Amino acid sequence: MISPSIKSQFEAIVGKENIMDSPAQRLVYSYDATPNIQAMPDLIVAPRSTEEVVKIVNVCQKGKIPIVPRGSGSNLCAGTVPIAGGVVLLFKHMNRIIEVDEQNLTVTVQPGVITQDLIETVEQKGLFYPPDPSSMKISTIGGNINENSGGLRGLKYGVTADYVMGLEAVLANGEVIRTGGKLAKDVAGYNLTQLLVGSEGTLAIITEATLKLIPKPESKQTMLALYENIDAAAQSVSNIIAAQIIPATLEFLDQPTLQAVEDFAQIGLPTDVEAVLLIEQDGDSQVVERDMRKMATLCTASGAISVQVAATLEEAEALTTARRAALSALARLKPTTILEDATVPRSEIANMVKAINEIADRHQVKICTFGHAGDGNLHPTCPTDARDLEEMERVEAAFADIFERAIQLGGTITGEHGVGMVKAPYLQWKVGATGIAVMKGIKQSLDPQHILNPGKIFTEDARKRLVVSS
Amino acid sequence: MISPSIKSQFEAIVGKENIMDSPAQRLVYSYDATPNIQAMPDLIVAPRSTEEVVKIVNVCQKGKIPIVPRGSGSNLCAGTVPIAGGVVLLFKHMNRIIEVDEQNLTVTVQPGVITQDLIETVEQKGLFYPPDPSSMKISTIGGNINENSGGLRGLKYGVTADYVMGLEAVLANGEVIRTGGKLAKDVAGYNLTQLLVGSEGTLAIITEATLKLIPKPESKQTMLALYENIDAAAQSVSNIIAAQIIPATLEFLDQPTLQAVEDFAQIGLPTDVEAVLLIEQDGDSQVVERDMRKMATLCTASGAISVQVAATLEEAEALTTARRAALSALARLKPTTILEDATVPRSEIANMVKAINEIADRHQVKICTFGHAGDGNLHPTCPTDARDLEEMERVEAAFADIFERAIQLGGTITGEHGVGMVKAPYLQWKVGATGIAVMKGIKQSLDPQHILNPGKIFTEDARKRLVVSS
Repeated sequence: MISPSIKSQFEAIVGKENIMDSPAQRLVYSYDATPNIQAMPDLIVAPRSTEEVVKIVNVCQKGKIPIVPRGSGSNLCAGTVPIAGGVVLLFKHMNRIIEVDEQNLTVTVQPGVITQDLIETVEQKGLFYPPDPSSMKISTIGGNINENSGGLRGLKYGVTADYVMGLEAVLANGEVIRTGGKLAKDVAGYNLTQLLVGSEGTLAIITEATLKLIPKPESKQTMLALYENIDAAAQSVSNIIAAQIIPATLEFLDQPTLQAVEDFAQIGLPTDVEAVLLIEQDGDSQVVERDMRKMATLCTASGAISVQVAATLEEAEALTTARRAALSALARLKPTTILEDATVPRSEIANMVKAINEIADRHQVKICTFGHAGDGNLHPTCPTDARDLEEMERVEAAFADIFERAIQLGGTITGEHGVGMVKAPYLQWKVGATGIAVMKGIKQSLDPQHILNPGKIFTEDARKRLVVSS
Repeated sequence: MISPSIKSQFEAIVGKENIMDSPAQRLVYSYDATPNIQAMPDLIVAPRSTEEVVKIVNVCQKGKIPIVPRGSGSNLCAGTVPIAGGVVLLFKHMNRIIEVDEQNLTVTVQPGVITQDLIETVEQKGLFYPPDPSSMKISTIGGNINENSGGLRGLKYGVTADYVMGLEAVLANGEVIRTGGKLAKDVAGYNLTQLLVGSEGTLAIITEATLKLIPKPESKQTMLALYENIDAAAQSVSNIIAAQIIPATLEFLDQPTLQAVEDFAQIGLPTDVEAVLLIEQDGDSQVVERDMRKMATLCTASGAISVQVAATLEEAEALTTARRAALSALARLKPTTILEDATVPRSEIANMVKAINEIADRHQVKICTFGHAGDGNLHPTCPTDARDLEEMERVEAAFADIFERAIQLGGTITGEHGVGMVKAPYLQWKVGATGIAVMKGIKQSLDPQHILNPGKIFTEDARKRLVVSS
């Protein structure tokens, strides 16, 4: 699809050393962290500046060549699978932290910065960037912005969108826009910043971002509450929120997840209980003490059989690190791991967990559930085998039922993973035909040739899950 | 413009009693809180339900009749002036607080709810809705959402946009969309919720909103720091933020504003100083105590000649109420009051205040300045007389210079008042021709006939300020 003449144009822009198109190299960028979906790009380009991105886009728009911006490919919705071929745009050179502005509490970054590097850099200055997706050790900020990534601290601190103050982005027509700025308030026209956040690379290519920082909380405590039944854990979540305590983290893990995580991390997690809640509070030390005490009492009153506060920072860190490893741990069980993130109003957590288990029974599939209980954002996860087509059909049917139930409970098909290809068939369930028509209109106005990450968010193939091979 | 047959269609939808079209009634809705801009609507309609809004829109789209949704008309950008005639849509019947959900910490409202009523209702349940525009006693939530209103608590708590979780809205084609929900996380497609917030009624008619609530802070303290020069006040703002304290409120008033407010409110404000900062902190009582102590020290070190903490809640309330009355107070000085809200990164507050004073001197106009210093959101205000055309030209030129300087400092033409008609000529200065093209593309895709609040945000008449008479 990409002619030698087009290739030489790319080479003239970024240099030969920043272009890859051998079969082996193309294979590497044919998939992301999403199981079972793969498609070969024609070429991989790594620009070194916004100007180079502009030039690349200009070549692509003339040739109607698809462009797929890609960070580390850690997304779980096949958001970076180059389903229509074309160019994968890598940001490995555009990975500078341009400025930490301590007066305005902002940080300005290029999209290729690794999330954890950003977090550590600002923490050295006593500042705090809260969004902490489980993949933060490898994920990029550009990817986080495109997917509007969440994380374990979302309950109290919100998601990536809540920290994006301004963007520089290259449009499909090769023009550059700058939105927002180091501004606590800005109502100059439509909110293009928030339109681009979470748009999965389908509306523009983000080349720079100014992010909001907050003061680093002075202290943090972590505790683990153990339950012999899942309802009691869910009830604890509701009771904590209803008591108007907003903990930094309020995570749920069921027994099968606990078992997998303990086998993987071996930090002495209990594996003989039905569920645990991992609870963190941060802030002023006295407030943290008070909230932890109150939450321990509420958990016990809701049926926790044990509540243990981590004695040391290391112990606390081990617990959250283990939680972040849940997907990796579950991925060891079977050749294929399907992880979803149906999300419901937090008051419906108990109903949703119950529904997931019933649905798993009905379709005779194993589903482990963990997730951000405080956000109502659950990750039902199915260890399976893509080669077993009969089982895959049952898995498919089970997840469709899970999405349907989430919608019935006032929820959504995806809380933080994005639509990409895997949720596209279900998007209409959440936003309706009218919502999709509005989104398509916006897409059409910004990218009339559909060169920006085509085949994502929208699909002709509603409801049925897509499985694609190269 | 509206024929008897169209009028009878409206009557059939909402009943005769919910239609107004006498000259006196039309005159009432020919202007809003913005000085010097007026245009007569053809008809005023007050629907009682979303279904009635749909029917009204269907009549309007067939007849290409402009629709201007209007809350209380307290906006300051001529956002609700029916510049192209047509229908003004009133929400006086759609003013119910539908549900306060204590489990999910949300409130669901119709657009006609008065902001202060909402705030008081949720506070009775120990919950908190932070956005508090100065007009909150009369403004509606629908208006707040359409303008993305700020307020005194914006520094710590953000603006209206930060609290809108979901919307129901009627599109220009008469279809109804529902965005978001009671969901802490939702990434199902583009963020239409945040696209509609602040879109000033130009993209859709908001008919219901689900808003985020937070626990009500347990305590609050208020203090006043007095300054003999403006730089010292601005320096205090920078030092407080750089010390990583985020107060709930950090307001600036210069001497002329202080004088006007004291004449109006008579609560014993000092009028012989150059500037004051009104500072509030809320939260856990010990944290509040600590922050207030630290901020008092920082203010003194930056040159405050006096720092006084309000002794009682009543005294504190009197101070913030006086601040909220600043516009009303200044409006008494001269027949016309032009109030703007140029906004800069908070580190540039001192430079911006200095620039405003220099610009006022250069154009020989009186400009009083107050505003949300912690947000970098200033309200330079000019008491003038619209009948004095020569002076109005100088006022015009001065504000153009102020916007230009704000942009140079990394700021924006409007922090919280919106673009409407009065900032439309300057929008390109902030977002560029490309930004405007993108916004126009979105507008075109959602409202191809331009029936929704036409003549707002976009203008043919760039840079020159519009002054229109009926």
